[in-house]
Amino acid sequence: MAERVVVVGGDAAGMSAASQARRRRDDLDIVALERGPLVSYSACGIPYVVAGDIGSFDRLVARRAQEFRDRHRIDVRLRHEVMAVDLDGRELEVRDHDHGRTFRLGFDQLVAATGGKPRRPDLPGVDLAHVHGVQTVADGEALVAYADQVQAKRVVVVGGGYIGLEMAEAMIRRGAAVTVVEGGPEVLRALDLEMGHRVRAAMERIGIEVRVGVKVEGFEPASVHTSDGPLAADVVVLGTGVAPASELFTEAGVPGGVQGALRVDRRQHTPVPGVWAAGDCAESFHRVSQQPVHVPLGTVANKQGRVAGINLGGGYATFPGVVGTAVTKVCSLEVGHSGLNEAQAAEHGFMAEAATIESTVKAGYLDDAGTIAVRLVGERGTGRLLGGQIVGDQGAAKRIDVVATALTAGMRVADLIDLDLGYAPPFSSVWDPLQVAARALEKRL
Amino acid sequence: MAERVVVVGGDAAGMSAASQARRRRDDLDIVALERGPLVSYSACGIPYVVAGDIGSFDRLVARRAQEFRDRHRIDVRLRHEVMAVDLDGRELEVRDHDHGRTFRLGFDQLVAATGGKPRRPDLPGVDLAHVHGVQTVADGEALVAYADQVQAKRVVVVGGGYIGLEMAEAMIRRGAAVTVVEGGPEVLRALDLEMGHRVRAAMERIGIEVRVGVKVEGFEPASVHTSDGPLAADVVVLGTGVAPASELFTEAGVPGGVQGALRVDRRQHTPVPGVWAAGDCAESFHRVSQQPVHVPLGTVANKQGRVAGINLGGGYATFPGVVGTAVTKVCSLEVGHSGLNEAQAAEHGFMAEAATIESTVKAGYLDDAGTIAVRLVGERGTGRLLGGQIVGDQGAAKRIDVVATALTAGMRVADLIDLDLGYAPPFSSVWDPLQVAARALEKRL
Repeated sequence: MAERVVVVGGDAAGMSAASQARRRRDDLDIVALERGPLVSYSACGIPYVVAGDIGSFDRLVARRAQEFRDRHRIDVRLRHEVMAVDLDGRELEVRDHDHGRTFRLGFDQLVAATGGKPRRPDLPGVDLAHVHGVQTVADGEALVAYADQVQAKRVVVVGGGYIGLEMAEAMIRRGAAVTVVEGGPEVLRALDLEMGHRVRAAMERIGIEVRVGVKVEGFEPASVHTSDGPLAADVVVLGTGVAPASELFTEAGVPGGVQGALRVDRRQHTPVPGVWAAGDCAESFHRVSQQPVHVPLGTVANKQGRVAGINLGGGYATFPGVVGTAVTKVCSLEVGHSGLNEAQAAEHGFMAEAATIESTVKAGYLDDAGTIAVRLVGERGTGRLLGGQIVGDQGAAKRIDVVATALTAGMRVADLIDLDLGYAPPFSSVWDPLQVAARALEKRL
Repeated sequence: MAERVVVVGGDAAGMSAASQARRRRDDLDIVALERGPLVSYSACGIPYVVAGDIGSFDRLVARRAQEFRDRHRIDVRLRHEVMAVDLDGRELEVRDHDHGRTFRLGFDQLVAATGGKPRRPDLPGVDLAHVHGVQTVADGEALVAYADQVQAKRVVVVGGGYIGLEMAEAMIRRGAAVTVVEGGPEVLRALDLEMGHRVRAAMERIGIEVRVGVKVEGFEPASVHTSDGPLAADVVVLGTGVAPASELFTEAGVPGGVQGALRVDRRQHTPVPGVWAAGDCAESFHRVSQQPVHVPLGTVANKQGRVAGINLGGGYATFPGVVGTAVTKVCSLEVGHSGLNEAQAAEHGFMAEAATIESTVKAGYLDDAGTIAVRLVGERGTGRLLGGQIVGDQGAAKRIDVVATALTAGMRVADLIDLDLGYAPPFSSVWDPLQVAARALEKRL
């Protein structure tokens, strides 16, 4: 009988793994079980459908189940949920929701790719109809339908992280008044406070109300209770982060690590023979802090899934880890960061210095030259770059990729000064803002 | 008597050197001699003044002579031209054009920063009034005045390099019909032919006529003679490149290298004791080909000037060289390249492979997602990245900085696949186009 690979979870990580395995081994029996009605869609695109940039949620679907069946001979089964994993018996208990039946399915190799689940705060009223998560396309559809139905005028977004900010923009562009409530001292905790403050100030200029240092205490049909009093709300959007959906496997005996994410080696193999894990349910390794981390992002899921698939198809590939890069935008404001911020560097025991500079995205003499603030963090003694943060106008955020690449290469801050970065007046000042920041930081180091 | 440093040439390289030297040594007597009426201006901005993006050439001036005098105690002398250098006698012969006098000036240390000079083809009629170079602000002013005066309707740009393309855009935006004449087989020789072809196709869509493989043979008041027949022209713009303006020093005995550019070590010191060189008159080292090159760009001039200044002020800094990065735009089309293209790699003895992919600048499902083509070149055997080329819509060109950083770090093509680049739908597809290209190239390697 053919060796059977069962992939649990049909999004980026799972379908990448399945496709790569098929590419290398024609003989494998590959089954992909997906709890929901879709495979391989971009959850990151949900805010842009809600905002109206994209006409329909359908457009977020990269590839249909039938395409995987036809082109890759992957036996994709939708609305099939794995209820239990028997590692010793090498069997899964599978619930077929459409046909209301439960069956057992054996496997030789298993890929855990169940993704993440939105953190729903354990607060009174969190299950009320107007409180919406935005993890799946179904969540997005429910939010849009509800907002249309009640003609949402006042929206409260809980959480000032990336998802919270993107949803705040989406709802304000739908014409609602939006308040973002963040329990921490500033939005975007991935940034140092002074950079987060720039983001908040820009949000306020756009007309988004931001309450920092305010705890949400509960929900009622027309309002949100907070430590700072009640806020009126037709609709509440939860931007409270994503936890690994790994219990199915940890309960079966696959070891869990950071926040319960599945532990994997550099080939995406768990400590259990023949069991692989990839995507939001798995751990990553942070190349700067050199610690395991949980990074629920589509880029990481795709990379990990690819690596798992190559290996289980008999090839050799490794995932060397992340440097913690993320970018986002809130209306015209762009934000990017990579590596460790100053506070994180201190937490990890680095003796760090940081410098922030302001410059322009294009040559300063061009009339439409937007602004950009860059903050770099470096290590004392070695002079090594530890991280960077960018807040600015159009053309600002993707510059963080230079920081990500430099961090990957283990460059020193001084090395950034020497980089031969592209220059022409519509793209940069003659010293790229990253290099202006590197020069400022180098003086302190 | 104080030790005297004389800087010859008051643009980016010279004034950077002077400022850095002053910062480190308060006691130096620093004199900067500039042949023209301005110091420290952005020649790269000239096309944008001609196009009308910038109201006046004045805005291109970064800092005035008086500012260097007042703040840095640098004795800047405008319209002072060095006529001869006596290395043994440690003296310069200086012509003060405003006062019509010539005098001798001794030096202890000398900085050669005379920049570049436009290559004027040795053709009949090249000195006619309607044939314009665009090297200096004075050139730009003359061009604008002439074009206004004759109400230029038909412009011929000689040369399909970066300057030629930028000037073609500038003139078309002034309302003229523009023809670019390029002697080589394709525009932008820094790109492989297939990528150059994409640029030419885009230029033609914009309405710029492009004649490749056509030699210019001479000029008459209303037309340009070419190997393909005459072209009508009210105005001719020469975009025929820049040569090092180094004769003053080579004739005095400072060794010249590539194209006559002054040879320097990694501290920007020439082989002559106490004589430094920086900017368009000096050589650079190409970190990928490991050969000396002449790269007349503002970024390089600023970096070299900084390094020369630190060293002559008693500090220690090195310029490790370039990787050959450049970016430009023609109307909405963006172009970037770094490292070696496939043809250059072969010339330097590399056994190279290349792959080109097409993708989108943003997530493909966004309505305004522009296109991007990426070509990467890698070395067989080692798998090392050798270069990259990008042609695309807004947001495309500056992605070349990741290639530049990866080249500097000596990364392999496979390492690009692992890079933790920023992703959100408004900025990229989940696999960044550079990584899509890296995956395609990796398969070939």
